[in-house]
Amino acid sequence: MSLIVAKFGGTSVASPERIQMVAKRVAAIKGAGNEVVAVVSAMGKTTDELVSLARALNTDPPAREMDRLLSTGEQISMTLLAMALSTLGHQAMSFTGRQAGIETDGTHEKAKIVKVSAKRIRKALDQGYIPVIAGFQGIDFNGDITTLGRGGSDTTAVAIAWGIKADVCEIYSDVDGVYTADPRVAPRAQKLTTINYDDMLELSSVGAGVLQMRAVEFARKYKVVIHARSAFTDTSGTYIKEATSKMEEAVITGIAHDTSEVKITIRGVPDTTGIAAKVFSALANNTVNTDMIIQNISEVGLTDITFTCPEADLKRAQETIESVLPEIGAREYDVDEDIAKVSIVGTGMKSSPGIAAKMFEALGEKEINILAISTSPIRLSVVVDGAQTVAAVRCLHTAFGLDSENIFKESQLSAEELAAKLQKGR
Amino acid sequence: MSLIVAKFGGTSVASPERIQMVAKRVAAIKGAGNEVVAVVSAMGKTTDELVSLARALNTDPPAREMDRLLSTGEQISMTLLAMALSTLGHQAMSFTGRQAGIETDGTHEKAKIVKVSAKRIRKALDQGYIPVIAGFQGIDFNGDITTLGRGGSDTTAVAIAWGIKADVCEIYSDVDGVYTADPRVAPRAQKLTTINYDDMLELSSVGAGVLQMRAVEFARKYKVVIHARSAFTDTSGTYIKEATSKMEEAVITGIAHDTSEVKITIRGVPDTTGIAAKVFSALANNTVNTDMIIQNISEVGLTDITFTCPEADLKRAQETIESVLPEIGAREYDVDEDIAKVSIVGTGMKSSPGIAAKMFEALGEKEINILAISTSPIRLSVVVDGAQTVAAVRCLHTAFGLDSENIFKESQLSAEELAAKLQKGR
Repeated sequence: MSLIVAKFGGTSVASPERIQMVAKRVAAIKGAGNEVVAVVSAMGKTTDELVSLARALNTDPPAREMDRLLSTGEQISMTLLAMALSTLGHQAMSFTGRQAGIETDGTHEKAKIVKVSAKRIRKALDQGYIPVIAGFQGIDFNGDITTLGRGGSDTTAVAIAWGIKADVCEIYSDVDGVYTADPRVAPRAQKLTTINYDDMLELSSVGAGVLQMRAVEFARKYKVVIHARSAFTDTSGTYIKEATSKMEEAVITGIAHDTSEVKITIRGVPDTTGIAAKVFSALANNTVNTDMIIQNISEVGLTDITFTCPEADLKRAQETIESVLPEIGAREYDVDEDIAKVSIVGTGMKSSPGIAAKMFEALGEKEINILAISTSPIRLSVVVDGAQTVAAVRCLHTAFGLDSENIFKESQLSAEELAAKLQKGR
Repeated sequence: MSLIVAKFGGTSVASPERIQMVAKRVAAIKGAGNEVVAVVSAMGKTTDELVSLARALNTDPPAREMDRLLSTGEQISMTLLAMALSTLGHQAMSFTGRQAGIETDGTHEKAKIVKVSAKRIRKALDQGYIPVIAGFQGIDFNGDITTLGRGGSDTTAVAIAWGIKADVCEIYSDVDGVYTADPRVAPRAQKLTTINYDDMLELSSVGAGVLQMRAVEFARKYKVVIHARSAFTDTSGTYIKEATSKMEEAVITGIAHDTSEVKITIRGVPDTTGIAAKVFSALANNTVNTDMIIQNISEVGLTDITFTCPEADLKRAQETIESVLPEIGAREYDVDEDIAKVSIVGTGMKSSPGIAAKMFEALGEKEINILAISTSPIRLSVVVDGAQTVAAVRCLHTAFGLDSENIFKESQLSAEELAAKLQKGR
């Protein structure tokens, strides 16, 4: 018998029919002799609809009210799942974040969990109930509802798993696990049986969107085992847990790509002390999240500054640059929206020299030009032309020995079609 | 400066535009130098929609979960009104039933308020906030959300008014006050400036739907002054308060009619002890709310039993009667759906003899046949043929001196058209 937390996202509870499916799934876990606690997100587009309602009344709604408003979404789905479980003959009891003992700081709209008092959940389990918990929300020291930020339900699930000492926190979604690369892009991608927290975090940070980073960080801190799996099949997914000697010792765990960034180059910047600081502090003040930064010397006394940032920040970035251009005496700037960041990630990298060389070689062989580079101890990222995304991911997947013998069934598109699709999807 | 509770129903907050109108109204009360607390219902049809969702998953949803589900409706409207007030430059803060200190017993779906701890509301007022409270809900001794039953937001408003010792509890709706009769039926009906609690309760009990009875009962018990008024005009409505010597001393305060009941007659019932008890306890067991009961002796040793009940209970009533018919040895039963209960109400009745005679005389003059009679110390009700509803209300309105010199503007229909409309509306 295991103690299992099972988390279901908004797509899984988008309609009464889907909630029924989730109920059957939860009932099956319990039926197999386990104790189970369900955590749910709001139904489908509920959160977006509530945000629209709020914005119709206030362009900058007070954060306290916004949190109270949005928290109703998960409160609706929790009661509906409890009702569906009851129809299946199970005793179920719903709990708001407050009742589940999720205590947070007072930072409305992205509160941090400071304590989990899971006594009430434990008691409900002991009484034979299936507790159903509203994700995404907690309560601050004032007794006010807070929310954990978008995707916060994953974090709720991990926190509850920690609070009740669950054996595993199962996170169900429409993806059946963590792959060595996006299987739509690299048809020979393999599903990982396990991945350690560091690799998962690093992969998430560069585009692999299976799990919320905060949830993984929380899991790493408190050693909660996550099982990322499909809500639609029974096959096992990927376990995210501490690195053990038994884990496969691949040097590179996975390849991630991210086409959601843009590259901006400011040209003809005087090569003087403090200029770069001026540019990047102005960008930071306008909440532009700059990622990779490169400074080239292109002409005598003049330099180019290149950086990447999320496409969502582009407008603010342009406004910022236009306002500092005269001040820094730069000539002009240009924007390249059609780029991709391709990253290789692996804890094993630390003890394996020559990884960078191998990466650049593989890309060079395919005549893929590297526009920028950034690194972490367990990651190497390059920026390439958007049209070369697929080729880059595939050649690196092969070069680092990640190719499966099987070709991923769902990947039927040609490299060209995929490239077009990836650009369109941006 | 007054301390005012202002309650707005579901129609008044049905859309962002209407919430903006409500916000302006609340802001105007505050702007006039008053302290104000707003109480809101769920937006428009929200509650109905949530009920449908629940029923899709469970034909008999657990009451605890149902309460939690439904309570989200008011929590959405409270935050939206707070946001709208904030847009108008007012500091507003929303409060759930729990936070507003509405403590109830544990009867889910129709909980009774046992305590109001309004400290938090008082504190928010002292800090200059406009508190916005979710109606319809409270919290029981387990810390679980309870709801007060349909229309419970009126009760919340009165309870809060009592808790903070408000000068008045203003209940805004699409009706601008309490009338001596339904102005659509009796064009010479007058708006009452004041009405005492007893008359209001009695009028509500026989069809005048301006206010929830429980709210009026609560107000009577704790001497809370209610001001029932229109959400769409600034004119004063009707004050519901204790009878004082200054109040107009009309013998009859108002005429109410109710076309939502049906009349059922069981024929050929043996005139033996215990038969009526058998019939009415069977009806009660099937939750049929019987109203008027008449027993006639029609043949030697056989009697007819006639009663009225809400049309909504008709199916259950028929099932019950069919099952007891053989047992009680009765012959048959028939149903008359086309009836109306017309009532005259007035505390003054107690000290004025001859009211019944005057009523029957007035009806007789118009050749309106009385099918059944029931009374209370301050009310006289008769059942008449549905087609005669309008004629009955009008002749009683005239007979008891309630006619205004002005004819109600909105009443443009002929008596026949009205009769048809009233029957159709059933």
